[in-house]
Amino acid sequence: MPFDFDLVKTSERGAARAGVLRTPHGAVATPVFMPVGTQATVKSLTPEDLEAAGAQIILSNTYHLYLRPGGPVISSLGGLHRFMGWPHAILTDSGGFQVFSLGHLRRIDDNGVTFRSHIDGSEHLFTPERVVEIQEELGADIIMSFDECTPYPSDLEYNRKALARTHRWAERCLVAHKREDQALFGIVQGGMFPELRQESARFLSTLDFPGYAIGGLSVGEPKWLTHAVLEETVPLLPEDRPRYLMGIGSPEDLLECTSRGVDMFDCVLPTRIARNGALFTRRGRLNARGASLRTLDKPIDETCDCYTCQKFSAAYVHHLFKAEELLAYRLASIHNIRFLTHLMESARHAILNGTFAQFKDDFLAEYRSTDEEVRVAQKQKWIESQRAKG
Amino acid sequence: MPFDFDLVKTSERGAARAGVLRTPHGAVATPVFMPVGTQATVKSLTPEDLEAAGAQIILSNTYHLYLRPGGPVISSLGGLHRFMGWPHAILTDSGGFQVFSLGHLRRIDDNGVTFRSHIDGSEHLFTPERVVEIQEELGADIIMSFDECTPYPSDLEYNRKALARTHRWAERCLVAHKREDQALFGIVQGGMFPELRQESARFLSTLDFPGYAIGGLSVGEPKWLTHAVLEETVPLLPEDRPRYLMGIGSPEDLLECTSRGVDMFDCVLPTRIARNGALFTRRGRLNARGASLRTLDKPIDETCDCYTCQKFSAAYVHHLFKAEELLAYRLASIHNIRFLTHLMESARHAILNGTFAQFKDDFLAEYRSTDEEVRVAQKQKWIESQRAKG
Repeated sequence: MPFDFDLVKTSERGAARAGVLRTPHGAVATPVFMPVGTQATVKSLTPEDLEAAGAQIILSNTYHLYLRPGGPVISSLGGLHRFMGWPHAILTDSGGFQVFSLGHLRRIDDNGVTFRSHIDGSEHLFTPERVVEIQEELGADIIMSFDECTPYPSDLEYNRKALARTHRWAERCLVAHKREDQALFGIVQGGMFPELRQESARFLSTLDFPGYAIGGLSVGEPKWLTHAVLEETVPLLPEDRPRYLMGIGSPEDLLECTSRGVDMFDCVLPTRIARNGALFTRRGRLNARGASLRTLDKPIDETCDCYTCQKFSAAYVHHLFKAEELLAYRLASIHNIRFLTHLMESARHAILNGTFAQFKDDFLAEYRSTDEEVRVAQKQKWIESQRAKG
Repeated sequence: MPFDFDLVKTSERGAARAGVLRTPHGAVATPVFMPVGTQATVKSLTPEDLEAAGAQIILSNTYHLYLRPGGPVISSLGGLHRFMGWPHAILTDSGGFQVFSLGHLRRIDDNGVTFRSHIDGSEHLFTPERVVEIQEELGADIIMSFDECTPYPSDLEYNRKALARTHRWAERCLVAHKREDQALFGIVQGGMFPELRQESARFLSTLDFPGYAIGGLSVGEPKWLTHAVLEETVPLLPEDRPRYLMGIGSPEDLLECTSRGVDMFDCVLPTRIARNGALFTRRGRLNARGASLRTLDKPIDETCDCYTCQKFSAAYVHHLFKAEELLAYRLASIHNIRFLTHLMESARHAILNGTFAQFKDDFLAEYRSTDEEVRVAQKQKWIESQRAKG
């Protein structure tokens, strides 16, 4: 069988897991962070850059590739791996999240979603069968079921209906899926309602997918709610299948959700914030344009083994951002991806050594999340405004 | 002596030369094309990309680096080579061309040029002494004298005065220059006036510069005039010194000017047109966005050994341009730079083998320059307009 998951070890406390996912394009050590290559390219990076940054598997977006250049074009060029020159594992999403995000440009019914292209306004229909067919043309190692994402907040009744549809669509995807060299994952939905999440996890488990994703989280809800929903859902998923939490990728979230039993993550965060000049460090995010870097003859992060930190000073990266040079986006993307792949490697090592809880606590004690920075800045501003009032 | 030029061979007919330029950062085989890294980065490329594309020496701009991040910052970070991670030879221009290009933002007198920054409008003064000082801070292997560029067209009287100033400034640069690990080149000026060009070549030759540039060409004049001026100038320059034609870099120009005795070239052309999607091929420029590439499962140029052509199909490069992905600019820049470095390598090989004239004729017979394409298109349009008139 070309697809296989081995659970190697579970952490001393809690549910964190170390595993190995085997795909037709190589093995992936989990927990794993997957960089996002929306349009068959992780923005600004070559496949070699990604390999050097420790990426084992990347995600690409069915919605975007369907519209441009199209499934048949990629198929005629030998599939996504060959098209983009990436010989390792690839996962494609189903386009569900993208088409639901189109808002007034889409219409949902039990058959599927009719939507207009964000590129040229042309009308298209995604059904479970169509989405599987497109993903078969693209040829990723892991493909996703077509699901209905619900917004946050939304009511129980709406979520109940959407979940029923997601479940019927999951069954239709299973029937439609033919390629034996691809693994089709199911997606647990259910909004922020524990009973629906549990129902979804139980129902999808009976369909015997080779892997399970948890969708519809990190859509605006507070973090405690994300964690609570995860805690209700994950224990009901089959232990011997990989669990993939969609669209989450800040360093603190990766550790919090790994500790709750998630094996796979993807997020545009590291590359998107990189292009804005935000660099991950052990102590939190660093602004590449900050004056403190102007003459700093040290790497962005002295403990980092990425190409950017091994080769260039923080002052050079700062200069590239100030001068709005294209190389800035690339060097920062390499650094941020490596930060997350390294974090996951360290987490895995700690799980295998029985020290994950300590590792996570140590990391989070040092890492000042942006949320916290924002809170501190707001508090400071409030104190100053009170002072100004006398 | 850290700087040295060996003339290895002159071509069977005409003046084309093969040589070796030795610098403190390695030897450079000539004729050579130097990619331009205006702001201490060749746009979108790492040093490794440049090495792989066959670059031996790159150019960086004193005007831009002086304004941002500043000579003292680069000096404190170990100089330009270390700052940008490029261990091979670097040449910096003097900023002369840039400040003259500022138009109404600058004022010239015998002392130097007062100008306003294009970044923040602040006022600055470049004198020959100051420009040498800045280039010493930057630390390139080859630095340039401060010269006055004249626009095209401009009259004899104006050019005579400007040339006298350029000559006085050349002498002042020589006096000011202290660093023994840098070679200071003189710059021949004189507009489009053969007598001034000859006077300039003769005068500067007496100053015994280790190399000579020819400035103020390709400023809007027709190609036959560029060639005519070159033919009047080059023979008067010392045979044992490298000759550098500033700002010229189309494939046809490189061969035409190599055949007239030029050893070094720089130009933003290959990287600038790359970012617009124009790709050099043996048969002329190719538009990366053209529909003919959409499904083309072959490299951009099957004879090209660059990373882009070795790794990706033309269809993929096409897709990246259509999707406006950052990687497009990088892959196209790598290809275009490699096209020119390979062209110069082939030219050198032909000079050494005594077959340069044939090599040049063969190349130009196959290469359809954009000028020619424009002419053909204009003619076609005229024919059609005549037909329409009946």
